Amino acid sequence: MSTAPRALAWSAGNCTVGRTMTILGERWTFVVVREVFNGVRRFDDIRRHSGIPRQVLSNRLGLLVEQDVLRRVPYQDPGERVRHEYRLTEKGFDLYPVLVAIADWGDRYLADADGPPVEFEHRDCGAVVHSMLECDHGHRVERPRDVVTRVGPGAQPFAVTAAG
Amino acid sequence: MSTAPRALAWSAGNCTVGRTMTILGERWTFVVVREVFNGVRRFDDIRRHSGIPRQVLSNRLGLLVEQDVLRRVPYQDPGERVRHEYRLTEKGFDLYPVLVAIADWGDRYLADADGPPVEFEHRDCGAVVHSMLECDHGHRVERPRDVVTRVGPGAQPFAVTAAG
Repeated sequence: MSTAPRALAWSAGNCTVGRTMTILGERWTFVVVREVFNGVRRFDDIRRHSGIPRQVLSNRLGLLVEQDVLRRVPYQDPGERVRHEYRLTEKGFDLYPVLVAIADWGDRYLADADGPPVEFEHRDCGAVVHSMLECDHGHRVERPRDVVTRVGPGAQPFAVTAAG
Repeated sequence: MSTAPRALAWSAGNCTVGRTMTILGERWTFVVVREVFNGVRRFDDIRRHSGIPRQVLSNRLGLLVEQDVLRRVPYQDPGERVRHEYRLTEKGFDLYPVLVAIADWGDRYLADADGPPVEFEHRDCGAVVHSMLECDHGHRVERPRDVVTRVGPGAQPFAVTAAG
């Protein structure tokens, strides 16, 4: 007999991970965010640097502006028309822990022998910044296995259909 | 005159964020990871609970096993054939900081009024676990704006093509 996982009793429909990945969960979207974090803010710069196809980039920038992760700021080079560059909003800046956590994992498992191409630096002291986990009691969580999921305040019952 | 962002001098080709998002950067892939972290490990359970189309789920599980994020473990219910469930490898468990960082952001910006449906708990003490940033000098990074990117040891020059 199988023991049903407890999580099956609760709906995944309002999962905030799922909602976040609806915005970010596509390779190019997060690559756009990475470029802007790196200071590459203009359409043609992002396109050339990242290799994102023009139409895809246009769509992703539109989504990120619509979702208030990026904002469009006008600029004008001499003799040129007004163009826009893209900057992080506060909501966008708050993606930094996600970006660093992704980079930490990628650096550990997917980097070239030379090491990662980009590092995150603490502006105040110059040391490299990493992602970590801490609990509300102030304990650093050293091992991922020390984290377990539990039902949160917004959990909704999962209605299993007869057909499964 | 525009001042070219420094990042444009360096290639994005070996970016570990990009490489990670090639594995994770698609909504359903991370939703599969979420299900397994929540203890939902069997194909039909994951499918029913997450709503992922069968073929997509099959593909994503295959990718995650191939990338050593998940491993297949046989089980057999009485009177049934041997089936497989999916468990996290160490590489997979090391995605916990990414999952928590994503959930923290989603909980902040995309949760229902009731709050998040799932919480992460510190196994030892029961307190809720969050993602944070810390530098190698032991400073907690309170504000995302206090992080800046810099060229890392594996940076490769970016060759700008004549055509842009």
